[in-house]
Amino acid sequence: MRMVDIIERKREGVVLTPEEIRFVIDGYSKDEIPDYQMSALLMAVYFQGMTAEETAELTLAMAESGDQIDLSKIDGIKVDKHSTGGVGDTTTLILAPLVAAVGVPVAKMSGRGLGHTGGTIDKLEAVPGFHVEVSEEQFIELVNKNKLAVVGQSGNLAPADKKIYSLRDVTATVNSIPLIASSIMSKKIASGADAIVLDVKVGSGAFMKEMKDAQALASTMVEIGEQVGRKTAAVISDMNQPLGFAVGNSLEVKEAIDTLKGKGPADLHELCLVLGSKMVVLAGKASTEAEAYAMLEKVIENGKALVAFKTFLSAQGGDASVVDHPERLPDAKYKIPVLAEAAGFVEGITADEIGTAAMLLGAGRATKDSVIDLSVGIVLHKKIGDEVKKDEPIATIHSNIEVVEMSSRRILQAYKVSGERSSTLPLIRG
Amino acid sequence: MRMVDIIERKREGVVLTPEEIRFVIDGYSKDEIPDYQMSALLMAVYFQGMTAEETAELTLAMAESGDQIDLSKIDGIKVDKHSTGGVGDTTTLILAPLVAAVGVPVAKMSGRGLGHTGGTIDKLEAVPGFHVEVSEEQFIELVNKNKLAVVGQSGNLAPADKKIYSLRDVTATVNSIPLIASSIMSKKIASGADAIVLDVKVGSGAFMKEMKDAQALASTMVEIGEQVGRKTAAVISDMNQPLGFAVGNSLEVKEAIDTLKGKGPADLHELCLVLGSKMVVLAGKASTEAEAYAMLEKVIENGKALVAFKTFLSAQGGDASVVDHPERLPDAKYKIPVLAEAAGFVEGITADEIGTAAMLLGAGRATKDSVIDLSVGIVLHKKIGDEVKKDEPIATIHSNIEVVEMSSRRILQAYKVSGERSSTLPLIRG
Repeated sequence: MRMVDIIERKREGVVLTPEEIRFVIDGYSKDEIPDYQMSALLMAVYFQGMTAEETAELTLAMAESGDQIDLSKIDGIKVDKHSTGGVGDTTTLILAPLVAAVGVPVAKMSGRGLGHTGGTIDKLEAVPGFHVEVSEEQFIELVNKNKLAVVGQSGNLAPADKKIYSLRDVTATVNSIPLIASSIMSKKIASGADAIVLDVKVGSGAFMKEMKDAQALASTMVEIGEQVGRKTAAVISDMNQPLGFAVGNSLEVKEAIDTLKGKGPADLHELCLVLGSKMVVLAGKASTEAEAYAMLEKVIENGKALVAFKTFLSAQGGDASVVDHPERLPDAKYKIPVLAEAAGFVEGITADEIGTAAMLLGAGRATKDSVIDLSVGIVLHKKIGDEVKKDEPIATIHSNIEVVEMSSRRILQAYKVSGERSSTLPLIRG
Repeated sequence: MRMVDIIERKREGVVLTPEEIRFVIDGYSKDEIPDYQMSALLMAVYFQGMTAEETAELTLAMAESGDQIDLSKIDGIKVDKHSTGGVGDTTTLILAPLVAAVGVPVAKMSGRGLGHTGGTIDKLEAVPGFHVEVSEEQFIELVNKNKLAVVGQSGNLAPADKKIYSLRDVTATVNSIPLIASSIMSKKIASGADAIVLDVKVGSGAFMKEMKDAQALASTMVEIGEQVGRKTAAVISDMNQPLGFAVGNSLEVKEAIDTLKGKGPADLHELCLVLGSKMVVLAGKASTEAEAYAMLEKVIENGKALVAFKTFLSAQGGDASVVDHPERLPDAKYKIPVLAEAAGFVEGITADEIGTAAMLLGAGRATKDSVIDLSVGIVLHKKIGDEVKKDEPIATIHSNIEVVEMSSRRILQAYKVSGERSSTLPLIRG
């Protein structure tokens, strides 16, 4: 088998065999296939696509290229959740205790990563004392006992995907549905979950700007799941504006606590219940999504979700008293309101701009070596459809430096205010 | 300017600017752009193509990446000829003295290269004493005096093309018309000719199997010539069987001598006159191709073409007596006839198979380090349309080893013999 022939076959639109796909991934992992042949193949895939079978084989080959987590010692059906990324996406912090409270085991592996704010682990570290340094044994014990634990992602999870992703990033081959889908799914599969719920974001603040692309990505990932024997469901949710109000680590923990108390932003609350319902059904704890939805509403109402969150924080060294006293979370020195420059109705909020403004304040990492300030961020006061008066605060900047002219400017630019009230988009798009 | 953006633009079908194309070629030449980005761009070009302007800019950028030969000290319009390669293509050996005999200056730079037989220089070295070690000054002097000289190609001719070609070879990006056309033309332009005649081969033994591809390649190259101010003409000629009868270095020199004497194979004779006529017109030595054709026929008849060949050989140390005594050329030890296994009419001769059979005998280089045996090769006795009787020799193997079972087999396999006489294809196809 020669790589040049495989490239040529894909270039000509021929469906690659499982053996050919394994040959590519094994060879590339071992540095036997050079970057320049891999990038040519990736570009050919960009143009010719991949069938469901090819994509599933690619996913499995990448999942099997490194550590494969064995969660078999955890009782029940382990359900993982993945979001394709957006701004102010606090769902994991809420969903995990929410579904744990109805008995769904959540064995969460999470990362830190780059971006507008930190990853799930960074956010959780805003809780004083919280840490993820637990052994594999403890991790399994905690999930069996509390139905919830979070650890750091293995550095050797799907290394083939990591290597290919770096190459795609510099060869203009990121934007290919089968490549995006297999990249996401390979990590989820290597993480050992039995079932996966996907939250595919669509809109100006998401990677997928168009509904048809989001649909294609969602169905490709669900198909991969089916091909490799993992129950998979997907939701397409709107990202034409940030989710919820808070963007920042400590600020998002506060918002998560509010939501678990039933007092969170409507959109965040709704999305968590929809995603959570799918998780509960996949875990076999309810037979319909409506039933699951009602179960989740109940554990918010009766406080069990909040208890699950407290138990989880304590078990990993965290000070659970922050749940009742959110003021004990890291707090920024300055709260600076951003005032509307004109009156009108909010028509759109460019999520990327808000995210970048938060990153500039120190909420996220621009590079691997950036240090995150857990206390800073942005709290929005207005969302699409809201009326705004001139000089009314549309957002508040939480910062440790007093001069935030640049962030302020960005936030104002992100807001599109028009004379007429626009119809709001539904949160759940598919 | 960033390479990843240029790749993305080409991927999206955007026309690259001259500055972008220069950035790519300069950066790649200087190793500032890595192979993996270049191969991704090449694959994007494979799918999206290039406009005439882009292709011309790419050609010029590659031509200017190394030595650029200055032929301005040679009087008259220098015309070069290029063939896209076939089997038994002896045209250069004939064309050069033929057009020189009517006053067209031929300042030929030639290579050795890999393939079924040697390059033009290898073939000429079959003439005892002939060499290409002449200084630039001598070269110019010789062309001004005799209208013909041949030297080895500069090692630094269009190095960017060389580097890109090596990459294309291993990334399945060879087969792209703008890339093939710019590769050929960049070397021709760097070689300093004022005008270029192209012989694009089409058929089973050529790189271009289909007429439409050959036409596209021919018109793309002519367009490049126009864009960069070099008069360019193209002929599309048939390569569904080897050209002439001889395949091998010494054997092809003999055939060239025969043709210059007016006793060569009809197809080779005709193609040389057609290509030669275009060269004569581009050089301004005749106003119509018909006039040029008649001039060339005349110098064959009156022996002036033969004299030009002798003068040329002598001037570069060669023993010109071989022209009158071809038996003085290197001769293989064994002449082994290949006998027809069945009677019928020749329907096709797979040129590649004949070429490979010749290479196996030692006529060509399989790798850079292979040593050529100038005396060996194959002489065909039957061509398309000819009647063949059982056990009649269809070809003769010229070899220095007695056992040639493998070559013999290949030659027989190359011949397609059928019960009915098939119509022959015209030699000049466009």
